[in-house]
Amino acid sequence: MSETVITAKADSPYVEITREFDAPAELVFRAYTEPDLVAQWLGPRRLTMKVDRWDATHSGGYRYLHVDPNGNQYGFRGVFHGTPSVADGITQTFEFEGMPGDIALERVRFTEVDGRTTVHAVSVGFSIEARDQHIANGMEQGARESYDRLAELLATL
Amino acid sequence: MSETVITAKADSPYVEITREFDAPAELVFRAYTEPDLVAQWLGPRRLTMKVDRWDATHSGGYRYLHVDPNGNQYGFRGVFHGTPSVADGITQTFEFEGMPGDIALERVRFTEVDGRTTVHAVSVGFSIEARDQHIANGMEQGARESYDRLAELLATL
Repeated sequence: MSETVITAKADSPYVEITREFDAPAELVFRAYTEPDLVAQWLGPRRLTMKVDRWDATHSGGYRYLHVDPNGNQYGFRGVFHGTPSVADGITQTFEFEGMPGDIALERVRFTEVDGRTTVHAVSVGFSIEARDQHIANGMEQGARESYDRLAELLATL
Repeated sequence: MSETVITAKADSPYVEITREFDAPAELVFRAYTEPDLVAQWLGPRRLTMKVDRWDATHSGGYRYLHVDPNGNQYGFRGVFHGTPSVADGITQTFEFEGMPGDIALERVRFTEVDGRTTVHAVSVGFSIEARDQHIANGMEQGARESYDRLAELLATL
């Protein structure tokens, strides 16, 4: 299985994540933009994802809940800037409702070579401190687990 | 007249702008969110602003054109994340249509003391290079002129 590479430099507010998948870009893009598919891979395995709102167009928004085994719910929301496409990727804002006002801008791009697709994701917020807080909250482990789940899902499509 | 202070550190992708206005926060907020008022101050004096779309609510979008004396039009667009308010400020994406895909996240906050309001604006994009390109394109001069015009407008309201 491919490795998820996460880069978060100490003197920069960016988090960059790359991961290669054994699937064409069109399929990876569908898994990112169709809510029924997103709900099958985004987040740690122990959480269930419920999509509350999903409109993947320019000035459309999304909101979803992650639900843990005890029934606790964690809400996330954002808006899409530009209509997502395989060629241009996806640009969206991101906010964990448990930390309101801490908003990030995320961009995901898809590069296909010989039927395999590299996902390159970048996230930036308003401070290095906010970025480090997300890392302290387990963002890296959540991303690795999400991408492993995405690889498994793509193998079934 | 107050000074517009613009900070853009070489090793950081942020642009920060602060400016104090002799007006209460509620009034400055109106000038930022009501399109008829925005069109009277946003941008350099030599350009006319035409608002094409303006929906200052969460997942609402905006688009406007700056028109120069020769009739050339420059389009800008973005999406609001969170519904703007005096207390929380404004968070929005920003894209100059002449540089498509170069998207920034902007936050404006309003702090009122003794009837005077300090505006604190922060902008961040996906690279220091993109930020420096905006500066090379005259962003600083445009910001200073915009804020002088805003001060003049506020004095009439």
